[in-house]
Parts: sequence; structure tokens; C-alpha cells
Amino acid sequence: MTQETAGKPFTIVQDGSVTTPAGFRAGGLHCGLKKTSRNDLGAIVCEVPAAAAAVYTTNKVQAAPIKVTRESLAAGGRLRALLVNSGNANACTGKQGEADAYEMRSAFAAAAGIPAEQIAVASTGVIGELLKMDRVREGIGRLPQQLAGDDRSANEFCQAILTTDLVKKSICVAVEAGGRTIHVAGAAKGSGMIHPNMATMLGFVTTDANIGSEALQSLLSSATDRTFNMITVDGDTSTNDMLVAMASGLAGGEELTPLHPDWNSFGDALRYVCEVLAKAIARDGEGATKLVEVRVSGAQSDRSAAAIAKTIVGSSLVKSAVFGADANWGRIIAAAGRAGEPLDPDSVDISLGPILTLKESRPVAFDEEAALEYLKGDTVEIIVDLHIGGGAAVAWGCDLTYDYVRINAAYRT
Amino acid sequence: MTQETAGKPFTIVQDGSVTTPAGFRAGGLHCGLKKTSRNDLGAIVCEVPAAAAAVYTTNKVQAAPIKVTRESLAAGGRLRALLVNSGNANACTGKQGEADAYEMRSAFAAAAGIPAEQIAVASTGVIGELLKMDRVREGIGRLPQQLAGDDRSANEFCQAILTTDLVKKSICVAVEAGGRTIHVAGAAKGSGMIHPNMATMLGFVTTDANIGSEALQSLLSSATDRTFNMITVDGDTSTNDMLVAMASGLAGGEELTPLHPDWNSFGDALRYVCEVLAKAIARDGEGATKLVEVRVSGAQSDRSAAAIAKTIVGSSLVKSAVFGADANWGRIIAAAGRAGEPLDPDSVDISLGPILTLKESRPVAFDEEAALEYLKGDTVEIIVDLHIGGGAAVAWGCDLTYDYVRINAAYRT
Repeated sequence: MTQETAGKPFTIVQDGSVTTPAGFRAGGLHCGLKKTSRNDLGAIVCEVPAAAAAVYTTNKVQAAPIKVTRESLAAGGRLRALLVNSGNANACTGKQGEADAYEMRSAFAAAAGIPAEQIAVASTGVIGELLKMDRVREGIGRLPQQLAGDDRSANEFCQAILTTDLVKKSICVAVEAGGRTIHVAGAAKGSGMIHPNMATMLGFVTTDANIGSEALQSLLSSATDRTFNMITVDGDTSTNDMLVAMASGLAGGEELTPLHPDWNSFGDALRYVCEVLAKAIARDGEGATKLVEVRVSGAQSDRSAAAIAKTIVGSSLVKSAVFGADANWGRIIAAAGRAGEPLDPDSVDISLGPILTLKESRPVAFDEEAALEYLKGDTVEIIVDLHIGGGAAVAWGCDLTYDYVRINAAYRT
Repeated sequence: MTQETAGKPFTIVQDGSVTTPAGFRAGGLHCGLKKTSRNDLGAIVCEVPAAAAAVYTTNKVQAAPIKVTRESLAAGGRLRALLVNSGNANACTGKQGEADAYEMRSAFAAAAGIPAEQIAVASTGVIGELLKMDRVREGIGRLPQQLAGDDRSANEFCQAILTTDLVKKSICVAVEAGGRTIHVAGAAKGSGMIHPNMATMLGFVTTDANIGSEALQSLLSSATDRTFNMITVDGDTSTNDMLVAMASGLAGGEELTPLHPDWNSFGDALRYVCEVLAKAIARDGEGATKLVEVRVSGAQSDRSAAAIAKTIVGSSLVKSAVFGADANWGRIIAAAGRAGEPLDPDSVDISLGPILTLKESRPVAFDEEAALEYLKGDTVEIIVDLHIGGGAAVAWGCDLTYDYVRINAAYRT
């Protein structure tokens, strides 16, 4: 799950994980929320109160753990731990669901010796069913002994947050700041809100950077706008989406603020971690065979470019054509045209990777065989230039396949 | 293509068509734009200049015939004829495409002896290819002799406007106004903008009502907002969508205005014609096996209810679940929650037809077998009550199936 970082102010740490940054331990176990024997309960713990920031789903229907986590962050902006279960989203579960989320937090506080208000709680899985709290309590009792700083323990955590994901998603980078090496790592789950009644993307970022909660929040929010908010698998937004970042500060050095000479380098590293995880979620989209990257430039503004890029990458017609390796530029310009953003219908260029198919809105003769070969690859780039301004944006998604329909037409079981 | 009209101020005319209203003739023929021998050129002609109104696609990329038709209606608000071809959308064809659309209009004007500015032109089919004008010219030369007022000729027209449609879509009703019988009829094509590079819904309404262009436009626009604008097959909007209405006035009687005692009856009849055609397009959605009707009530406003209803009916997750006959209310409330409209997460009721599945946002135990039986039907109603206001709306769509993916993954040929 790494990619080109040449010229970037940071390097990828091979085999790095959320426990690579100083001060973090992680772990996971199976407590019985999943029908399989796969891990379904996990935690990340920091040995010091970490500066914390979070981004939540914009869905008006929000799961109980989101309320609890909001309270924890509001209490002081610092977290010692993240507790996560998979197999049950604890969403649409009413007052009992809220009580269960609070009990998860207090039970882990007692078991790990951490103040409850310094614990975040996240859930993912089936909507509308109450948690089997007897199993959760038993698992929470065993969890603290499972926590360690090695990669195997970090892997157990990554496994514990997965639902329909086919692959675990983890990345770690190192960035130099003030002569010190800072690590930024992340783990995520999500392949679209797609399996029957399954929800959610969850993302967890750890770093040993010395940074305050507000500064971390500003960087996390802007990174999210350009990464997690730019992916779509099926256009649906879950009730449980949550991204939490924790900074232990144990790398030391001068506190990172916008005035720090390495502020941008750290911000780039954080954004890269989010981008790698976001693209991994898109590529792992339910039934997906390809990652689709849509690059829009020449728009009236970056915001406008983002709206057009997301409309194209979310189009069922474009997604189906990519699955069929069909160089179907007509659907791409039609999707751009319906985005509701400024556009000159006579000045649009569209390329599929290296293959120009539309120039100033007129069809260009291209080698269909070469296009077919390109579209058969596992990553497809759709490049659109509107030629009306300087706005640009990139969005990521996946193709629409028989497997998407098969999985989502299946009965809830 | 008829449905319950009990209690409505109009009756359905069995075997009625766009030529049933007084003054209209229609016809169609094959000129060679389609690879098959199916009709691909047709026209509706009125013996008098008919008061006319139209609604067009909101896509910023619009096909050449839309520009020509806008000019014709702007010239005087009256039309003598509609000329339609299928097999080629004449979209993204630049200046030559515009010249071809104008030539279609002038050629039919000469052949039929009608002023060019009283002719509307519509096209549907492949995007980005120039019309084979030699074939179009030849067909236009033969078309006037094909026009007649009988149902067979109307059927030839209905066939001529189809692309990927599996069934032709036509309806005629009779309404009493001022002691006279007024007929309102319509024909449409469209099954989503879905076949590779195929576009469009087209709708044509004829009536012998005595009504002015502005009054007709106001009724057509409001009817469209609650019918054609409330259907979605795949969320994509074509470059060619067009709905045109022509009123011959030959039923006589006092001119219909908002002050006429039968104004509402006529408006209801027009809206019913649009609704029947819109639902027929949704049911004929590419690969669809079911018509999905989403009824939202208790919203803050009708507009808000409409936005929520369209979000639900357009959700790939909901559409897949309906295909799988899965009583998946979790996806329905999640879709409602992401519509960006006011909603109380704790007061949502959701029923699937007669089966209540969610009450005040809490799961209700229901008979899964009965739900399965209901969802296996060819029409599925999703009923959502938000309990926060008096806003209500209805949206229509279809399920997401393997065939949708198969057809849309196919190469352009």
C-alpha cells in the first residue's frame, strides 16, 4: 500500500504501522460479534494524553459511538485510547445503544486504567441491532493484555476494524522536522457502505509529532477534504464514518504551528497518509476490479473542480463503462455537464490516461485497441480539462461490477 | 399503460394516442440511422399553429436540436410540427451538428409546407457522431405522406422515437371542460441515459384544449417538476432531454386560464399524462425488474421531501436491495440522512408497502417471509414519514440489476 514519494518531503517506512510513532501500542481480539473467528474488537493506546482531532460523518443519522467520541474530544482535546468494534455498528439502536457505547468507554477505562473522557469509541457493522454487551465486556477485559508496540499487534488491530474489506489498510511515513524524525501512521477500514446493512469507513492516524489539538484538527480537516471526502464507492454515506488522529508529542522538538519551518512538510505527510488510505478504500470498493482516478483542471475554482470530479467518479454509467473497458467519453462529458458547475460545452478536453478522446468538446480519432488495453489495467485515470479557469481537484472511486450487485442484492444474514 | 383514475376528473381513452386530440396527425419510418430496420424518423403535425410549451435538459452540455427547438418556440410560441430522429443524438457534434439540425428543420418545412420556425426538432441516440444527412434528407422527403390521424400511424411515431426502450410509452385521457370533451395525450421514450453512448428521455404531449402558450407552459413546468423530474434510473442526465406540448385548441370553448372553472381538472389530466409516461420510463429503466415508488411525508417542506425521496430512490444500495428483495431499511434511513435535508434521527418511520419496518427510528419486528413476498412483486413502495412537518413528495425509480451492469459495460458498437 505504498506509492511514489519521489520529491516529497517524507519517506515511507516499510512495515511501519500505527505503533511505529513513539508512545503507541495497539492490539485486537475476537470477542464474538462477528460470525467468523476474525478479530472484532481492537484498541490503540497512547502512553501519554495525546493531542487529538477528529472528523465525523455528515449523515444526519449518526451512530451512538459518534456521540460518545464527540464528548470525549470536547472534554479536553486529548485522548489516551481508541476502542473499536466491528460486526455491529451500534446505529439506530436508540437509548440502549447510547448506554452501550458509554459502557464500552467506561469498561475500557476501568480495564486499562485510563480516564473515560480520554477514550474514543468507534463501531462498524450491522445497523439496527443491539450490541451483545456480554461478549463486548468479556473482550474488553482481555484487551489490555493484548496491547503491544510491535507490528504483529498493530496488525491484530487492523484486522479487528475490518468488515467487508478484502485487504487491511495501513501506512507509515517519516518526515524530518527541526532536525528530528517524526512518524505519521494510519490504519483504515471501508469498502463503501455496501454490504447488506454494513456501514462505514473508519480511519485512525497516530503520530509522535509535538502538535496541539487545534493545529492537528486544522491539518486533519483540510487533509480530509482532499482525500477521504474525495472518494466514492456507491455515493452512499454511512452513519458511522469517523476519522481520529492522535499526536503523542514524544518526537519532541519545537511545537508544530503554522509558523514552524516544517509545518508544510508535516502537513504534506499527514495528507499523504490520508490519501493512501482513501485510495485503498476506493480500490477495495465492493466488487471493484479497478481504482478510478478522476483529475479535473481548468475549472472556475478548486471547489467547482471537486464537484465535477466527484460527479464523474460517482456516475454509474462511467463506472460501468470502466468495468467494461469502454472508452466512453460521451458519458464523462455528460456527467461533467450535469454537475451544476460552470462549464463551457465547447471547450472540454477528455483523456483516458495517455489517450486523448475529446478535444475542445469534439471527438478525437484514437486507437480503440490501445484504449482497450489501457482500460483493462487495474488503475484508470480520467483527465478532464475545462479550459475556463485555474481550479483543479482529484477524486477517486472504482468500477461498477456484477459483484457489486450480487453482494448488495444478497439477503441480510 | 393505464392505472387507477377513480375519483379523478378525467377518464382514460382506451387505445387513445397522440393523434386522438383533434387536429393532430403522426407517423414514422425507417431512414437508416438505426442498424436494425426499426423506425428511426417520425413526426407529429398539427393542422393549425398549436400553442406550444417545452422543458429541456438542465445539462450544461446540450445537443444541437435543443438549440433549434428553443429558437422555434421563441419565434412565436406556436408549433405546427415535431420532427424526431432516433439512432443519433446529434450531440457533441459542433458547428456541423448545428447546421444539420437546422437543415432537418428546413427540409421538413419544405416537404410538409410548414414554416420552419413552427417546427421543433429532437434527436436521441449515439453521442459524438455526425448525422448521416443523406439518409435523413431522403426520409424527410417520404415522411409527410406517412402522416395520418389513425392509431396505426401514431404507433409508427411511437416506434420511431425509441432507442433502448423495451416498450413504447403512450397514454390518452379525456377531461370535461365547459361542457366539452378535451383530450390530452402523450408519447415518450427513455429508459435512463444508459446504453453505451445512448442518451435521453423525450416526451411529446398533444391536446385539443383551447389554451395559450404561457398558460400551457406553466402547467407543463409544474407537471414536470412532480413527474419527469421525480424519476431516476441511474442518476445521469442526458444532453438531449426534451418535453414538448402542443395544444390545437380545436376542442373549442372558452380559453383555459387559471380563472376557468375547469383549469384544475385540465391541469390534473396533463399531470396524469406526464406521470404515467414518467413511471413507464422508470419501470423500463435499463435492466430493471421492478418499479420503485418512494413516498416521503412529514418533511419540513415539499421541496425537502422531494430531495429525500430522490436520494432514496437513487441510492445504489437501496436499488440493489430491492433487486434482491431484501427488506433493508438500514440503507433507506441512511440514504434519507445523507440527503442534506432537515430530519429528526429519532422520529423516522419506514414501511415497505404494508410492512412497517422502522417506527420512530427503532427497528420493528416484521415477518421476513411476508416482506420477501412483497419485495418480489413488480412494484415496490417505500414509505417514509419524517414526522417533522407537512412536506410530501413521491419519486420513482427502478432496481439495480446484473443486466444494468452487463448492458452498460458493453463496448460501444
